[in-house]
Amino acid sequence: MSEPYWTPERVDALVSQRARTLGPQVWAAATPDPRQVISFAGGLPDIPSLPAKELLRAAATVLEREAKEALEYGGTFGPLPLREAIAERWTRMDGVPVTKDHVIIASGSAHAIGMVCETLLDPGDVVMVESPNFPGSMRTFRSFGVRQVAIPLDADGMRTDVLEARLAELRAEGKRAKFIYCIPNHQNPAGCTMSLERRKHLLALAREYETFVLEDDAYGELWFDEPPPPSIFALSGGEHGVKVGSFSKTIATGLRMGWVQGPPALISRIAALRYDMGTSPFLGRVIAEMMRNGDLDRHIDRLRGIYRRKLERVEAALARYCAPYISYTRPKGGFFLWLELRPGLSSRDVQLAANERGVIVGQGPQFFADGQATNHLRLAFSYVDLEEIDEGIQRLGEALAEVAARGSTK
Amino acid sequence: MSEPYWTPERVDALVSQRARTLGPQVWAAATPDPRQVISFAGGLPDIPSLPAKELLRAAATVLEREAKEALEYGGTFGPLPLREAIAERWTRMDGVPVTKDHVIIASGSAHAIGMVCETLLDPGDVVMVESPNFPGSMRTFRSFGVRQVAIPLDADGMRTDVLEARLAELRAEGKRAKFIYCIPNHQNPAGCTMSLERRKHLLALAREYETFVLEDDAYGELWFDEPPPPSIFALSGGEHGVKVGSFSKTIATGLRMGWVQGPPALISRIAALRYDMGTSPFLGRVIAEMMRNGDLDRHIDRLRGIYRRKLERVEAALARYCAPYISYTRPKGGFFLWLELRPGLSSRDVQLAANERGVIVGQGPQFFADGQATNHLRLAFSYVDLEEIDEGIQRLGEALAEVAARGSTK
Repeated sequence: MSEPYWTPERVDALVSQRARTLGPQVWAAATPDPRQVISFAGGLPDIPSLPAKELLRAAATVLEREAKEALEYGGTFGPLPLREAIAERWTRMDGVPVTKDHVIIASGSAHAIGMVCETLLDPGDVVMVESPNFPGSMRTFRSFGVRQVAIPLDADGMRTDVLEARLAELRAEGKRAKFIYCIPNHQNPAGCTMSLERRKHLLALAREYETFVLEDDAYGELWFDEPPPPSIFALSGGEHGVKVGSFSKTIATGLRMGWVQGPPALISRIAALRYDMGTSPFLGRVIAEMMRNGDLDRHIDRLRGIYRRKLERVEAALARYCAPYISYTRPKGGFFLWLELRPGLSSRDVQLAANERGVIVGQGPQFFADGQATNHLRLAFSYVDLEEIDEGIQRLGEALAEVAARGSTK
Repeated sequence: MSEPYWTPERVDALVSQRARTLGPQVWAAATPDPRQVISFAGGLPDIPSLPAKELLRAAATVLEREAKEALEYGGTFGPLPLREAIAERWTRMDGVPVTKDHVIIASGSAHAIGMVCETLLDPGDVVMVESPNFPGSMRTFRSFGVRQVAIPLDADGMRTDVLEARLAELRAEGKRAKFIYCIPNHQNPAGCTMSLERRKHLLALAREYETFVLEDDAYGELWFDEPPPPSIFALSGGEHGVKVGSFSKTIATGLRMGWVQGPPALISRIAALRYDMGTSPFLGRVIAEMMRNGDLDRHIDRLRGIYRRKLERVEAALARYCAPYISYTRPKGGFFLWLELRPGLSSRDVQLAANERGVIVGQGPQFFADGQATNHLRLAFSYVDLEEIDEGIQRLGEALAEVAARGSTK
């Protein structure tokens, strides 16, 4: 047969409801972009600082000291030394007692969020989400057939007053939200950090409405001047806050290592549904060794300096080339700067004009739970080469000027 | 609060249908057994031969040569060099053209099977499964709320005549099976290998009834005297056979690396539903390097000798200590020997009597799709120390004698 029997159409007839909900399109976010461009698009870490040497040293130590344990199954909750190292670290950092029973290891934080969804979500359920938001998580929620209620942000993070109104409406319908999803630190894409007051309000609402705060903390450790306020997990004493952490941004996305940290009764339920025999004990022990020998802390310190310098370079260039067209709130850490365009400028037009100049930026409805894009561009300043920033932002400025000129001649 | 808010009961009220179907019990299979026992229980690889040195060498090569690619996202389908190495290897071994588009990398074969289930299964669907069978896979299928139709085995593998009858009955109900799950090589737990004739019949049935053969091939490369017959994937020219492979048994379970190999239209659909940003490019490239530099082939050769010696040792001891009570078909590879007990001996009683003597063996309803256990014990000969085999089987013989004596005095 030269024609395959299993055409997309024949496969379509067999796929699950979840697969039909999401459709046949493969999400390209995790796929490297082969083009020669100046990219402010992906939330990807700085390349030259990737800690290959430290990883190899930790791998050698682990394979020398504990090869048997590293190369056998490590249990459904994930490798014990990593669970213990995470518990010890966040007991110290968050000031609440975290134990291994609060922690389950995942194959990256996207997998961690997926495990929480598998454990909690049925079609027709409701979750509350910040808007704008990380498209990957919203895509995962969508695959479970749930309704996502969009809660807007401002410079202090999630508008908890709006959240309160939505939760009350939901209760009036006789429903409760399965969780409230947020990225409290250096939000993706908006760059804002939730204030302590908002965090306390959010926690009070989670208690009142008996639900979880699913807090995605991929960027929390990458602050520039001072750490963000305590996590909702910490404020709740390890109860209503369910924190998802990741080593993708602090070590490397290529490891695919993250975790969930939450009430032990929920963590145990996540483990009970898990079918993948746990996340790699080898990689888990390598990371635990980097935590133990101090390499992780030293590396994070270095990263803070690198990303601060990149942000400063971007800000200087924006002031030089783009000032008439944009405004933004300076992020206190993380990877993202969220540019609001001057009224009349279309973010889509600017994106296309920048693309034509070999500069890639993010924008569009995929960042919005209700699909209604506002007039913003997302600039990821993390990945782009430091030396290319000025050139890239200059071209973005040309794109902005071109779109503005087009508008004024219409 | 000393009493946690999120008790198991409060969590239960929020969990998904899938979590309720499976219940709160965490499956312990992937958790190391801390007891000091002689274990014939788990399907775990030999410990002393774990290729720690080869893994470290490959890791050093990868981090030296391609740190950027290894430590960045590698795409939803998984790291390209591993997909290509798998395609090249099985093109050579199976004699059909396998391309990267036939392959998606997973975090172990249990994860691979789970991805296939997520893509194909809705509650109420029907799958055909060999019985006895690997409890982990049946547990995964159960979590999706599907009906599992049990197809018995004999020494030549799945009874395809029974399968044919079941498929016809299902068609008469107006339904079709989403897939037929089998472990054609060195089956877990029964140890049998499906004959070529049965494979051809199975494939003909998959074609006729327009479904997939999900063939779990964790053990195929670990043959003792000659390779098993071609995979159903190969016989089907890469169409109706969907093969799940694993590096757990050929390298290490602690890596959590496996793959699915099937029709590109299905593989693409699996990728479209995937939410975990792909399996670790770092680990994937380490394995690809072990395939490229010949270490994997050399290691598998070594393993064949190790497992053959362990099986011979078990067989010699069975002949010495257990002959009056048991019969079995010699496995041609893999990890498992499936003992049929003499009529009147209860496998549960023998298991308990062996446990009391510090010897762990497998048996029971978890191996059977219909929950009806036959009178068998599963002896995994892979993990137990070569020097402990004789002692372990001697104690098993004592357990058999004790249970037989009890029976005769009743």
